[in-house]
Amino acid sequence: MADRMQELNVQNMKKIHSAAMDLLRNTGVSFKEKQALEIFKANGQRVEGTIVFFEESDIQKALKTAPKTFTVHARNPEKNVKIGENDFVFLPGYGAPFIMDAQGNQRQATMEDYNNFCRLVQTSPYINMNGWMMVEPSDMPHETVHLDLNLSNMLLCDKPFMGSPVSRQGALDGIEMAGILWGGKENIMDKTVSVSLINSLSPLQFSEEMAGALIELARHNQACVIASLIMAGGSGPVTLDGVLALQNAEILAGITLAQLVRPGVPVIYGSTSSAMDMKTGALSIGAPELSKNIHLAAQMAGFYNLPSRSGGALTDAMSADAQAGAESALALSTAVRSGIHFILHACGILGSYIAMSFEKFIIDEEICGMVQSMMRPLALTEESIDIGVIKEVGIGGQYLTHPKTFKLCRTEFFMPTLMSRKNPDAWTKDGKKRIDQIAENKVAKRLALYEKPDIDPEIKKQLIEFVENRKNA
Amino acid sequence: MADRMQELNVQNMKKIHSAAMDLLRNTGVSFKEKQALEIFKANGQRVEGTIVFFEESDIQKALKTAPKTFTVHARNPEKNVKIGENDFVFLPGYGAPFIMDAQGNQRQATMEDYNNFCRLVQTSPYINMNGWMMVEPSDMPHETVHLDLNLSNMLLCDKPFMGSPVSRQGALDGIEMAGILWGGKENIMDKTVSVSLINSLSPLQFSEEMAGALIELARHNQACVIASLIMAGGSGPVTLDGVLALQNAEILAGITLAQLVRPGVPVIYGSTSSAMDMKTGALSIGAPELSKNIHLAAQMAGFYNLPSRSGGALTDAMSADAQAGAESALALSTAVRSGIHFILHACGILGSYIAMSFEKFIIDEEICGMVQSMMRPLALTEESIDIGVIKEVGIGGQYLTHPKTFKLCRTEFFMPTLMSRKNPDAWTKDGKKRIDQIAENKVAKRLALYEKPDIDPEIKKQLIEFVENRKNA
Repeated sequence: MADRMQELNVQNMKKIHSAAMDLLRNTGVSFKEKQALEIFKANGQRVEGTIVFFEESDIQKALKTAPKTFTVHARNPEKNVKIGENDFVFLPGYGAPFIMDAQGNQRQATMEDYNNFCRLVQTSPYINMNGWMMVEPSDMPHETVHLDLNLSNMLLCDKPFMGSPVSRQGALDGIEMAGILWGGKENIMDKTVSVSLINSLSPLQFSEEMAGALIELARHNQACVIASLIMAGGSGPVTLDGVLALQNAEILAGITLAQLVRPGVPVIYGSTSSAMDMKTGALSIGAPELSKNIHLAAQMAGFYNLPSRSGGALTDAMSADAQAGAESALALSTAVRSGIHFILHACGILGSYIAMSFEKFIIDEEICGMVQSMMRPLALTEESIDIGVIKEVGIGGQYLTHPKTFKLCRTEFFMPTLMSRKNPDAWTKDGKKRIDQIAENKVAKRLALYEKPDIDPEIKKQLIEFVENRKNA
Repeated sequence: MADRMQELNVQNMKKIHSAAMDLLRNTGVSFKEKQALEIFKANGQRVEGTIVFFEESDIQKALKTAPKTFTVHARNPEKNVKIGENDFVFLPGYGAPFIMDAQGNQRQATMEDYNNFCRLVQTSPYINMNGWMMVEPSDMPHETVHLDLNLSNMLLCDKPFMGSPVSRQGALDGIEMAGILWGGKENIMDKTVSVSLINSLSPLQFSEEMAGALIELARHNQACVIASLIMAGGSGPVTLDGVLALQNAEILAGITLAQLVRPGVPVIYGSTSSAMDMKTGALSIGAPELSKNIHLAAQMAGFYNLPSRSGGALTDAMSADAQAGAESALALSTAVRSGIHFILHACGILGSYIAMSFEKFIIDEEICGMVQSMMRPLALTEESIDIGVIKEVGIGGQYLTHPKTFKLCRTEFFMPTLMSRKNPDAWTKDGKKRIDQIAENKVAKRLALYEKPDIDPEIKKQLIEFVENRKNA
């Protein structure tokens, strides 16, 4: 079929694979974590200092046990999600230190902001999973904030959530809390209830914290995205061709560690690499290179039969303007169309990850709905084409009052809840509002409508106690 | 390869084809133009009143002579464009009665606005062809405005242009003027120098004006887009399945007329059908159904080995806000990615065709550049991957100062001229401008830099005289 974006043929993919194998065999990857080095040694791999070398057979063994598709369980089982093959999920933005308000004022994010994003996720018709560190709360102690984020995820929202990857202890805390939430740790030993984001440190490194968290998460069968974020021309080669090879090596190294810890643990092939802006030297996530990388990384994940992760509604714009809309729509639609399974940052991000915006969350969320709707195939049956109606209406007739139009008009098309289709008069009468201004009003309404999902009071009490105890420890 | 948008298989396409054949054979298409009816009769087709019936063999004969690809010649031959197969072109918005200014004030468009759009097209790095009726000038007499539009197209811009399809006489005027521009009508008899937009009147009709223009344009080997714009649930079925069948019948009927007039004349399979908004009863061109139809119509055109046309940066938004950016990017990128060849409305449109915006023109134009860049394949050669550099930089190194980064950093990535990558401090210092505000400033600068392309003074004089004479006739 016609797709003007580049289709990698097997030869292309083998070339990227071989380049990664060359790097893994001859340059190696540094894991700054003792136990990780022991695990690799026990697997018979060459380890020199912190540098681990991989044979192709090590990688192939890991790929054999990594699942193609898996389920993330939610405490409300109706909200379980599948990830892989035809199933994909949208998640909110991740890691922003600031909030950009509707008037263009940037301020430090707080715990209450984080909680409000949990409430928006809970009430979202399109966002399937809750995130983690959607913003970094400045009003909470750094050492224990992961406990508060976990607690909010578990209490304010009953969708599946991302886990805490900050360190080995951070991961263990998340697992303990999930155990409480499921009425006993034994209930989650063979069940994936979280997905955590493990980033490499490009080029070719994994930090102690990330490798430690990965080991604990994998041991407890919790899914990990193994992701590489290379800034082409900064932390990686200036060509996307080279970036594909380098990120492939890093991701496969991380996946191998996960599979050595627990063969069969769900892992996701992740990349959100992009170009460096040549004028500022900063990462550009509104760049078309980001979308190209998404499209190509999705194919590499497919080559290995792995689920894939990319960014979604990403932009360099500092406000929810036309640039934000366009850049976000390009990356998000590329991710969905090109077959990505775990679409992080599907809503809210502004300014190259610097800030989350409540207004942009609401706008991006509707774009998620639109893109999802674009993917829905037509039935193309006798009934759906219905040549009889076309003949009946005939030449120059109208379909508006036809019974079939009445019957289907409320279900056949995507129904926007935000995007404006007002004519000039109605728009003028309504104060000529831009969509970011309309969204501002909508955020307040959504938060007012939010209802906390029910939870067993005993479990809630135990969770809160766990957090208190850990904070006082 | 993975594409989550629906791929039509041969059986699907045959079903849509058969439904259209059924309509063409049994319901027929009304052509409210005498000569058209005579041409069909002479071909042995059944004609009853204004209704023309088609056998499958009539359609197949036409499809045999319609070219898969063709060139549109510009008066500056360096700006010739190819249309079809791998070659696609971007064109500006078409048919808007109003201008929406940067402050959200809507006003009637003037001839000077039209001329300014010609100047923007001429100076555009991404828009390949000049349009026609980009806005409807309210300060020119309706009967002769087509002459003024043609004249501006020919004098203010040396890119290939769209022709005048308003009526038989309108088309002939355009052809006469093109003859003058090429130093004699004999010079364009076997050369396509324009593409004109012929719309059906759904359901299943062609107006006298459109059919008359089509006949003259085809006779003179000028390319025609045969396009159907169905509002699903209004002027066509409420399902996109039915819309595909109905528009297919209309487009094939028009193409058959063109090929009967002159076998081999270039034609383009055009559709920009979309959904009716169920709240307002108006056409929605920001709807995801528009993109779905683009994707499916492109495949139907491919089934017939014909070049295809769709809309581009379309939106229902009344200002160049985040909604405008997102809706425009979705439709434009779908058109390019799904293989459309003639992308009309690639820049400037607001409010469901009601207005053109200079600011949105500039914003959309850059999106065209970004999307084009997304389609550029990687080389994936030893040299472009360059494993040597990755090994040299090694674990934890940096690429910023590597000679290869210096060498390629200015050519490897898309370089925005509008989209902002400013950090928060720089953005704040710069007055926290939205992209539409930045674009406003840019429009004035672009127009100030415009230079009229050279033209033989004798030809210019003849063109102006032709227009004067026709106006005084």
